[in-house]
Amino acid sequence: MAIHKRKINPEDDLGFGPQPVIKNQPLVNKDGSPNVKRVGLPRFNSANNYHTLITMSWTKFWLLVLSGYLTLNIIFAFIYFSFGPQSLDGSSGISTFHRFMDAFFFSAQTISTVGYGHISPKGMMSNSVAALESMMGLLAFALATGLLYGRFSRPSAQIVYSKNMLVAPYLENSRGVMFRLANLRRNILIDLEIEIIFSFNETVDGKTMRRFYPLDVERRKVSMLTMNWTIVHPLDDKSPLKDMTQEDLEKTEAGFAILLRAFDDTFSQTIHSRTAYQYNEVIWNAKFKPIFDRDEDGRIVLDLSKISDHELVTT
Amino acid sequence: MAIHKRKINPEDDLGFGPQPVIKNQPLVNKDGSPNVKRVGLPRFNSANNYHTLITMSWTKFWLLVLSGYLTLNIIFAFIYFSFGPQSLDGSSGISTFHRFMDAFFFSAQTISTVGYGHISPKGMMSNSVAALESMMGLLAFALATGLLYGRFSRPSAQIVYSKNMLVAPYLENSRGVMFRLANLRRNILIDLEIEIIFSFNETVDGKTMRRFYPLDVERRKVSMLTMNWTIVHPLDDKSPLKDMTQEDLEKTEAGFAILLRAFDDTFSQTIHSRTAYQYNEVIWNAKFKPIFDRDEDGRIVLDLSKISDHELVTT
Amino acid sequence: MAIHKRKINPEDDLGFGPQPVIKNQPLVNKDGSPNVKRVGLPRFNSANNYHTLITMSWTKFWLLVLSGYLTLNIIFAFIYFSFGPQSLDGSSGISTFHRFMDAFFFSAQTISTVGYGHISPKGMMSNSVAALESMMGLLAFALATGLLYGRFSRPSAQIVYSKNMLVAPYLENSRGVMFRLANLRRNILIDLEIEIIFSFNETVDGKTMRRFYPLDVERRKVSMLTMNWTIVHPLDDKSPLKDMTQEDLEKTEAGFAILLRAFDDTFSQTIHSRTAYQYNEVIWNAKFKPIFDRDEDGRIVLDLSKISDHELVTT
Amino acid sequence: MAIHKRKINPEDDLGFGPQPVIKNQPLVNKDGSPNVKRVGLPRFNSANNYHTLITMSWTKFWLLVLSGYLTLNIIFAFIYFSFGPQSLDGSSGISTFHRFMDAFFFSAQTISTVGYGHISPKGMMSNSVAALESMMGLLAFALATGLLYGRFSRPSAQIVYSKNMLVAPYLENSRGVMFRLANLRRNILIDLEIEIIFSFNETVDGKTMRRFYPLDVERRKVSMLTMNWTIVHPLDDKSPLKDMTQEDLEKTEAGFAILLRAFDDTFSQTIHSRTAYQYNEVIWNAKFKPIFDRDEDGRIVLDLSKISDHELVTT
Repeated sequence: MAIHKRKINPEDDLGFGPQPVIKNQPLVNKDGSPNVKRVGLPRFNSANNYHTLITMSWTKFWLLVLSGYLTLNIIFAFIYFSFGPQSLDGSSGISTFHRFMDAFFFSAQTISTVGYGHISPKGMMSNSVAALESMMGLLAFALATGLLYGRFSRPSAQIVYSKNMLVAPYLENSRGVMFRLANLRRNILIDLEIEIIFSFNETVDGKTMRRFYPLDVERRKVSMLTMNWTIVHPLDDKSPLKDMTQEDLEKTEAGFAILLRAFDDTFSQTIHSRTAYQYNEVIWNAKFKPIFDRDEDGRIVLDLSKISDHELVTT
Repeated sequence: MAIHKRKINPEDDLGFGPQPVIKNQPLVNKDGSPNVKRVGLPRFNSANNYHTLITMSWTKFWLLVLSGYLTLNIIFAFIYFSFGPQSLDGSSGISTFHRFMDAFFFSAQTISTVGYGHISPKGMMSNSVAALESMMGLLAFALATGLLYGRFSRPSAQIVYSKNMLVAPYLENSRGVMFRLANLRRNILIDLEIEIIFSFNETVDGKTMRRFYPLDVERRKVSMLTMNWTIVHPLDDKSPLKDMTQEDLEKTEAGFAILLRAFDDTFSQTIHSRTAYQYNEVIWNAKFKPIFDRDEDGRIVLDLSKISDHELVTT
Repeated sequence: MAIHKRKINPEDDLGFGPQPVIKNQPLVNKDGSPNVKRVGLPRFNSANNYHTLITMSWTKFWLLVLSGYLTLNIIFAFIYFSFGPQSLDGSSGISTFHRFMDAFFFSAQTISTVGYGHISPKGMMSNSVAALESMMGLLAFALATGLLYGRFSRPSAQIVYSKNMLVAPYLENSRGVMFRLANLRRNILIDLEIEIIFSFNETVDGKTMRRFYPLDVERRKVSMLTMNWTIVHPLDDKSPLKDMTQEDLEKTEAGFAILLRAFDDTFSQTIHSRTAYQYNEVIWNAKFKPIFDRDEDGRIVLDLSKISDHELVTT
Repeated sequence: MAIHKRKINPEDDLGFGPQPVIKNQPLVNKDGSPNVKRVGLPRFNSANNYHTLITMSWTKFWLLVLSGYLTLNIIFAFIYFSFGPQSLDGSSGISTFHRFMDAFFFSAQTISTVGYGHISPKGMMSNSVAALESMMGLLAFALATGLLYGRFSRPSAQIVYSKNMLVAPYLENSRGVMFRLANLRRNILIDLEIEIIFSFNETVDGKTMRRFYPLDVERRKVSMLTMNWTIVHPLDDKSPLKDMTQEDLEKTEAGFAILLRAFDDTFSQTIHSRTAYQYNEVIWNAKFKPIFDRDEDGRIVLDLSKISDHELVTT
């Protein structure tokens, strides 16, 4: 294993520098994000809040909107309620609870600008608060519109990767490290480019450092992702993986970072997708099963549920 | 036909690999999308739903919006109706049908936040539902705004291509394969780049495979699409089409995929347009008629309705 | 004038081909758009309608919105009016005119979803129309939001160019063709790149053709447009303008197309600006006056109103 | 100091030309914008107004929205008030002040389209104004939506730079000029590229001119900003800073402009960040303290509050 003598291009280390991986803590998470905890950030950071609101799940987002609507109405209900029974005309409530509920419903009618008018504000105070609340309603609505559109228009590649990397037979008398990917969305991806960064711990003179090597692939680019794409790194003499065994990968806490770049033709945006395979996700001596077939008309049929299907091979 | 001995660049196969075309099923549809059926997709996929809503026709879109509005109001009408006649103040209906219609119109007034107030909710239950419905109205509105803007701002090249490819005289004593295109929109397209991928079935040793060749063009780029653009592939010695006849094209199920890239200066977006010609859309020994003229002031007049006009030539 | 023997790069002709300029009709308008009339377009074209709504002047846009609002309300007023006096509850009008105005104001209250309720729909027919109108109001609003944002977010470089091109002294014993430009907006433009295409009619063997030459400039790129930028084409031996006189430019209907590309750092968009100078906008033997000064603190002061200021020089 | 004999690439001068820095007035502000005052701009410029509304602080923005809402309502209140007491039905005010406040609250209910209806317009004049006002409300709302989304979606890198540049030990027996940066936002930045432009005044033959030199850096690009990034300019023989002392920097009013380009993967946008260091922000013989650590699980912890931490070194 004399590979550490090769020239390492510092641009290949993904910005991590020579820090070794310790205690099985990978550098890159499965979703491709760096496994780094960040502290010391400023408390309030509107850009990050926006980022959170845009990237949170739809369930969380709708729960947040609903609870925000409830909270605002409860706060305003307390304000109207505190102004006394004469401040809301048409409030039919006799008990305290009913009076509060009238204030609550009046608030909801105001903030949503529905304003039936069977309950209406009376006097300077409740009128002023209602004027403010309806303006807030409009702005909250504007905010929701912006957030919804921001969530929708965010370029999001939905690339599905095979669950495992395989060490499979490749060409005649050779082997390759392989994985495959396909597009889950209906939009057309063009000009795709793939990069694999292989990294492992190496101990030289008692000092453990992380090494990073970009791996050669059989085909670095495709002009259009019409079907699936199987990416192959040939295990030839130039490969730093050439003489490594399954045990070597484990011992050196080896990992593969996958970087995909493509152009989404539907929304005219460059998109990126990243993932990572750890040494324990590599299956030796297996090959992928076919993912496409022909229907009776001769048309190609691609079955995306088979993306991870593979079978063992005997060498 | 020794062309199969040339080196084939794997990046030119549009991602299809060596699958032959069978039963007249082209690889690329007329609109440039791959002719592949995709199955095994996850059932619910919000990104695809959005994609569908953005790319469907305007007629379908408005019908969907209208029927959604109707459906929502019918559902809410049933809810209000089920709360009994005392739950809506001002409901003047005596018959069951009139009471239901009052509930329906009250729902419409609530979801659109118009809220006249001649019918108004009474009691905890209908008030709560109305508060929820008006919020839903606001959010549905926000969604519609986002969708409408998404539909509008989607970069969409409206490139018109000539209906046929022609095999026409070119320069002196030579021939070329030609088609032409123009911009149907008023926006200015700059930095245009064209690519033609020619593909056909080839049988070697009894095994049929698809071959892909990018074709040389007389002029690969134009800096601005001011008029129309006639793209010419010269049938010279380097052309894989050089010695092929009309019958050869049919026998090998030949096809041409056209890929156009441009920059839309009005909306600052890179756009792509794709189309395909099958062997039966190629007309031999024909040439295009002129598409532009001069008006009385010396100004160039481009008649886009003539884009496909051609006439036969005698060789 | 043996310049027609130079190799012409077909990509420099701006897509016009060898058509000569006749009757003083320039190929490129002052705003940089091609001077080509397009006919034969499909009658209804939603993309072009959107393009028109986005690029029209603000005055026209607001007039259109206002007249659209008026027209819609007049149409709906006629519908409500036709349903008879009993269809609108609270309509206090006695005369026909007052009844129509009540219908008109009710329509305005419905479409804007303000819905005071002092006039309210009565009966199936007016209730149904009102439900439809309020939904239309919501959607029209969504449309207006999209259009307004589309108008705002459209990348628009506001580059001001000097009114004239000057043939001015340049370095020692030499001359150059010059013009200058500056940014009228406060956003920061980076990575600017300029191109000048010089074109003129040339008659060879009795046939008049248009020739296009890209001109060398002293400095093709600037990394940031911090001040103004004077673009200089040196009149050296490589210049096709070297031996041309003012009369030559006129006789050959010479013109200069200017293409500027930059990156708008505020909105993260590539922008383009184009303009053109005709032979009669070139001033011979003049030089630009300085455009910037220092204030008392040593700070540079740029006066954009002086962008076209020049003075004659005696050679 | 024979560096003025080197070839200066005109593209490196940031567009400033050879103007010297006088009276301590730097060319580039701390936020990276050019320190140039611009006058002679056209009075009304909608693009600049939009730019101002998009880039102003949130506090200012909300104050502007609130005061605009107040001002509009006060204007409309005066209009309704001027129509006399009979123009608003349901106005319960007896005193002039109460009548005006009723007009004010009616205006607020109209412009926000809440329209309770307990006050409603009566007669042609107030009805017409109310119809206009509610339309204005809708459009103002559309505008606010556009502005809010424009503010949110604006690509804004939040890069934090170390407060000082350090002249620190670098490799063995050498020194380097260093600063470091990190991303304050959670979005992932990829393909980062840095440029340092060093500039200083030089007096040749009694004429003071500004010189600009791009500085070599140890590593010009990183593929991903996973942690922090320390940018090092080695003080080797090629460096124009090689033989300059702290006094030289001060005497020549030296400055460093920093230009960072990156791709924001979350929003699919190219972003730029700029800053500047003046000679008095350079600390000699100091080195940065480590900014990251490991937690108990072996995970890397990055403390962004330590970005500027450094300590003096004894050489």
